[in-house]
Amino acid sequence: MKELRVAMIGYGFMGRAHSNAYKRLTDFFPVSHRPVLQVACARNEEKARAFAANWGYQRVETDWRKAVTAPDVDLVDICTPNDTHAEIAIAAARAGKMIVCEKPLARTVAEAEPMVVAVEQARVPNMVWYNYRRVPAITLAKQLIDEGRIGRPFHFRSNFLQDWTISPEVPQGGAGLWRLDAAAAGSGVTGDLLAHNIDTAMYLNGPITRVVARTETFVKERMHTLTGKVEPVGIDDACAFIAEFANGSLGLFESTRYARGHKALKTFELNGADGSLKFNLEEMEYLDYFEYANTESHVRGWRRIHVTNGEHPYMNRYWVPGLVIGYEHSFLNALADFVKGVETGKPVQPDFRSALQTQKVCEAVLNSGREGRWIETGATA
Amino acid sequence: MKELRVAMIGYGFMGRAHSNAYKRLTDFFPVSHRPVLQVACARNEEKARAFAANWGYQRVETDWRKAVTAPDVDLVDICTPNDTHAEIAIAAARAGKMIVCEKPLARTVAEAEPMVVAVEQARVPNMVWYNYRRVPAITLAKQLIDEGRIGRPFHFRSNFLQDWTISPEVPQGGAGLWRLDAAAAGSGVTGDLLAHNIDTAMYLNGPITRVVARTETFVKERMHTLTGKVEPVGIDDACAFIAEFANGSLGLFESTRYARGHKALKTFELNGADGSLKFNLEEMEYLDYFEYANTESHVRGWRRIHVTNGEHPYMNRYWVPGLVIGYEHSFLNALADFVKGVETGKPVQPDFRSALQTQKVCEAVLNSGREGRWIETGATA
Amino acid sequence: MKELRVAMIGYGFMGRAHSNAYKRLTDFFPVSHRPVLQVACARNEEKARAFAANWGYQRVETDWRKAVTAPDVDLVDICTPNDTHAEIAIAAARAGKMIVCEKPLARTVAEAEPMVVAVEQARVPNMVWYNYRRVPAITLAKQLIDEGRIGRPFHFRSNFLQDWTISPEVPQGGAGLWRLDAAAAGSGVTGDLLAHNIDTAMYLNGPITRVVARTETFVKERMHTLTGKVEPVGIDDACAFIAEFANGSLGLFESTRYARGHKALKTFELNGADGSLKFNLEEMEYLDYFEYANTESHVRGWRRIHVTNGEHPYMNRYWVPGLVIGYEHSFLNALADFVKGVETGKPVQPDFRSALQTQKVCEAVLNSGREGRWIETGATA
Amino acid sequence: MKELRVAMIGYGFMGRAHSNAYKRLTDFFPVSHRPVLQVACARNEEKARAFAANWGYQRVETDWRKAVTAPDVDLVDICTPNDTHAEIAIAAARAGKMIVCEKPLARTVAEAEPMVVAVEQARVPNMVWYNYRRVPAITLAKQLIDEGRIGRPFHFRSNFLQDWTISPEVPQGGAGLWRLDAAAAGSGVTGDLLAHNIDTAMYLNGPITRVVARTETFVKERMHTLTGKVEPVGIDDACAFIAEFANGSLGLFESTRYARGHKALKTFELNGADGSLKFNLEEMEYLDYFEYANTESHVRGWRRIHVTNGEHPYMNRYWVPGLVIGYEHSFLNALADFVKGVETGKPVQPDFRSALQTQKVCEAVLNSGREGRWIETGATA
Repeated sequence: MKELRVAMIGYGFMGRAHSNAYKRLTDFFPVSHRPVLQVACARNEEKARAFAANWGYQRVETDWRKAVTAPDVDLVDICTPNDTHAEIAIAAARAGKMIVCEKPLARTVAEAEPMVVAVEQARVPNMVWYNYRRVPAITLAKQLIDEGRIGRPFHFRSNFLQDWTISPEVPQGGAGLWRLDAAAAGSGVTGDLLAHNIDTAMYLNGPITRVVARTETFVKERMHTLTGKVEPVGIDDACAFIAEFANGSLGLFESTRYARGHKALKTFELNGADGSLKFNLEEMEYLDYFEYANTESHVRGWRRIHVTNGEHPYMNRYWVPGLVIGYEHSFLNALADFVKGVETGKPVQPDFRSALQTQKVCEAVLNSGREGRWIETGATA
Repeated sequence: MKELRVAMIGYGFMGRAHSNAYKRLTDFFPVSHRPVLQVACARNEEKARAFAANWGYQRVETDWRKAVTAPDVDLVDICTPNDTHAEIAIAAARAGKMIVCEKPLARTVAEAEPMVVAVEQARVPNMVWYNYRRVPAITLAKQLIDEGRIGRPFHFRSNFLQDWTISPEVPQGGAGLWRLDAAAAGSGVTGDLLAHNIDTAMYLNGPITRVVARTETFVKERMHTLTGKVEPVGIDDACAFIAEFANGSLGLFESTRYARGHKALKTFELNGADGSLKFNLEEMEYLDYFEYANTESHVRGWRRIHVTNGEHPYMNRYWVPGLVIGYEHSFLNALADFVKGVETGKPVQPDFRSALQTQKVCEAVLNSGREGRWIETGATA
Repeated sequence: MKELRVAMIGYGFMGRAHSNAYKRLTDFFPVSHRPVLQVACARNEEKARAFAANWGYQRVETDWRKAVTAPDVDLVDICTPNDTHAEIAIAAARAGKMIVCEKPLARTVAEAEPMVVAVEQARVPNMVWYNYRRVPAITLAKQLIDEGRIGRPFHFRSNFLQDWTISPEVPQGGAGLWRLDAAAAGSGVTGDLLAHNIDTAMYLNGPITRVVARTETFVKERMHTLTGKVEPVGIDDACAFIAEFANGSLGLFESTRYARGHKALKTFELNGADGSLKFNLEEMEYLDYFEYANTESHVRGWRRIHVTNGEHPYMNRYWVPGLVIGYEHSFLNALADFVKGVETGKPVQPDFRSALQTQKVCEAVLNSGREGRWIETGATA
Repeated sequence: MKELRVAMIGYGFMGRAHSNAYKRLTDFFPVSHRPVLQVACARNEEKARAFAANWGYQRVETDWRKAVTAPDVDLVDICTPNDTHAEIAIAAARAGKMIVCEKPLARTVAEAEPMVVAVEQARVPNMVWYNYRRVPAITLAKQLIDEGRIGRPFHFRSNFLQDWTISPEVPQGGAGLWRLDAAAAGSGVTGDLLAHNIDTAMYLNGPITRVVARTETFVKERMHTLTGKVEPVGIDDACAFIAEFANGSLGLFESTRYARGHKALKTFELNGADGSLKFNLEEMEYLDYFEYANTESHVRGWRRIHVTNGEHPYMNRYWVPGLVIGYEHSFLNALADFVKGVETGKPVQPDFRSALQTQKVCEAVLNSGREGRWIETGATA
């Protein structure tokens, strides 16, 4: 089996989630390449060492430039804050490395575009970790749509609700908190959470062409960990937008970190003439499906598909029917698809180019929030 | 339209529920007979007058013997405590009145048998108010079974869970509390709650032939309102039993008034080779249905049928799809069927004879609880 | 007991729902006035007679002008299509009658404003049938907010989803279908469904100040029953809007008749710093509540309150804990409150003036949908 | 870090689940011992090699006797069919190895008792893989009980429902199917599924003292893969029993492989005077809790605790609030506790002695099913 030697840039939440996927891949999937945890890279050497020791990386680097050009590295995985994605990805592409990058691709479209150019010029396999496409229930949703079960689409609605920043005592910036720092993150819930929902939406329902949005920052000032001072908050705490899809259906999206009682309520619902689909990440083992066509009217109802059978996407790699997998397996499934893409030469989605489209929608949303009017995303049918 | 002049014996919870049904029948159902609230009968004249005034009865009686023989009465409705059912019903039958009797038919099989003889000898229309058969979701369950959607049955499980007698401060006996008094009620949860579940079970899954039961009285002594003294509690607070059905399937039943958090959780689930059904009275607008046969495996799931469409049982009489009816409508539906039976001469179920079978199962359950062994119900396939 | 003699103008779905409420009021509520079904009024005499016979009205009228000025009438109930509300209401007010009017108050703000003037000049008791405020779970939501359990509000989201007009074969106009005829209805889902949600939202979360909306008509042409020709559809089939509340929270509303699988999915969710609330009309017996404050973190969770206890709003008038009431009882509860208001002289909400605010929000929504920009509602904090 | 060298006996479903736990332990838990996958043992060398290659075992054995006495082995993990547990465990104990054994401990009490003697005489750390105790929601249930939140217990009910053997075409015996072969498995659902529920029940609610059971074999004959002939089925396809707990509460248990629509519906519900708890393995991220004490009556309801916060059992080792773990993590959690027990010298539960009590209840259940009467388990309060 070939080796796939990984340089992991970053060591936070996503660094852990991806490392776990690399370590477990061959336990569950019959792939052609075996990931090797080669380099753990972080500016802080102590933290890099601790992370490497925990997960079993062969060596550490404190300079990402060395890591992404190292000859013993095949694949660069970018798990650092959003403001660093572009520089690292472009350097890695120039070094001819395969690249898998955490979402969102970058802070802005302007940052993201050269990244796409770089990987396409270098012709390196590339993927963005919009991992939720590989939640089996979401992949099954795509399958049911492709089977023609939903018919003409009318509505797509989607939320991503959390509640962890309600307290004004939560600081912005610093380790684990860069998502509240506009300079590092680029935006708030739009890039962090809605980007996921937009990716899922376009995966299932095609391009989004126009949006009108409302963003809000409920807590205007927070202690900034890096400066030690109370500073204005630059991110969007909440964002809602109405969307038009190229296929003529209407979208409604909302994300917030102020929805008391919800921790990771990523949902979607698609309504078509012939059927509907519903999903909720907090109970990700289910896909809800309403079948209208081919069902007698007195027995129509929303059915809960417990997506744990061997015939469901990815599930034949795991346990037995009825036994659930978890959040982390979405990364494992995505990695398996990426490696299969490397093997077959057929690019896996979402690649950088696809993620750029998501970035464009995010940017249109943020602009609309600022300007209070409908904005085109530039996508077409 | 013909009149159906009602003598209501009793004025409690069931007296209200039935009176409501009589008053509303012609508003919703195109029936041949119009119920007239003729006589409200109770020993306590003041209470009888208040009840009659509230619901619009024409006159009151304090002696049920006069009420059940009065020439201006066509139908006697028995809503008094269980210990009085037999005497009243037999007298009413002898007077040639139609009879609708609250469940359970009586306290014991010995009491119930002459009631059946009486109504059959008198050839009077008769019904026992096992109203839950007319919850649209339960009637729909019966329809789906009759359509052959469930196939060979394996399991039937059924609960009726409440929590209102956990406090030892709840007294036994007296107005509104005769259900805790063994002399008046005959038994505790077995006659009050399990009788309903047994009726539903036999309606859906046929006769029960053998049972083994465990009954329990958690609070051994309670103040008796009638005597003013703390007295031993004679009823079963809880009862669980395993059952064999004549069709070869197994039953499991449980009822209690000590299930904290449940107020009227009457449930059933039926599992067959080709499909399954589930119901819960606390959200009675739904019937859950798992279709195995004729469904592709990757889209199988439990579906929630919102039983509010015009093609669902009884629902074309009420509002529009999606809008729910309530508990009280089960009585209205039952009454509509009874009146239609009167009109057509075709007896409606459950009649006294059918309710006697339920009584026999209850009695076998109580005997099994006492004796700690399997007991035959006397029913056959 | 005083009489409250009702003239019912209209005989459709709402005519039935209101008639049912009048007939049952004194069975369940200890009120000072007894409704009398005095006059059923419809242009078509045959239909008026059939309706009157079904519900027991004393007499019929075919000219609403006679009905609303008749000396044997105390209260005029307007259940006709929206385009007739203003004229009837103003005439009834001038005749000094109490008025209860179906929602929406009118087709437009311009139509609605003189209605408010008329009832206020005439000083007659008046109410608009935004009946959902009297669903016990929604009234309980209001109570929990007033108890301070939710804290600073951040988000209010609300849907009203149906699926009955997906087929292009559904005609517009004519009996039972005037809701699809822009001339009669004024608008589509905005006036029919969102008006309910806006009323509920303002009841629970205060005034809405600005909106941006997107409306859509998916089926552009339908057979018009009145003209017998295929004609352009003038109503909004679907409408989504983002809202700002005067209290600083954000709103998100959506309604459609193209959400396959939903029949009457009227929902709301309110998220505040200290707790959240959720409701769904299809299972209206529940209110979901997340309590953050005063709860230890390891036992926090969304709780389903089964709103059927005696201490819940209105429920002490009905049955026993655990047993549900239905859609129709929301009208009964509203009527009880209206009659109590007549008795005490304290106006009940929502009156015409309050419903005018809802009308203004609807109009801002429709204008925003047409103009593609944020629109002020005129309301202030 | 010390090594914990594992000999895995067996390579089936449980062999995979346990191997996964060993490999991942130090990624997630800060333990003192690092598991090493030393020996994979199976009679069939080819299968042993394939299994070892998949999971990364150092070497293979085809004779379990060699594996359990090998000097490079610290811990023996028994994942073979039930009929082999006793012999292997006793040999491993005599060799002084730590032992972790799949459940049930053995086929019978007579087989199990010498196993307990062997491990206790050898004083080796030992555990039985009743892994569900380490589902965070179940561990949390235990914590809430220990916090006194449930009060006097009245009822414990528990199901384990599957549907995979309904087809008579499913053969008995052979690879992956030994659970249908009475000689290999000892019993059917009782040992396979109810054993889990009994372990959970005694963990949460203490000893079970008496039972009355009904067992059933719905499909009387099946092809036997080992003999190639249709042979009588010796196992119980379904089993229901009523139980008495030493604490005075009543139990009701049911398991079947004929409950169409359920794949791994392991449930329990505990009702106490002060609160209730509910769990369902198919949505294992939730624990449902009804709090009666200390809650105002109008806001009482069943709450769904999404057991994914850092303060919930084991969850601080994984991701962030809202993100679920899966079935496999119950083994990882159990292993972490076992290793901590090795480290501290404090035996972890359930050990062989504890599992013997579960075995005794299973045997009483099976005997009661055969004899049709109440049977004592031998346990006492």
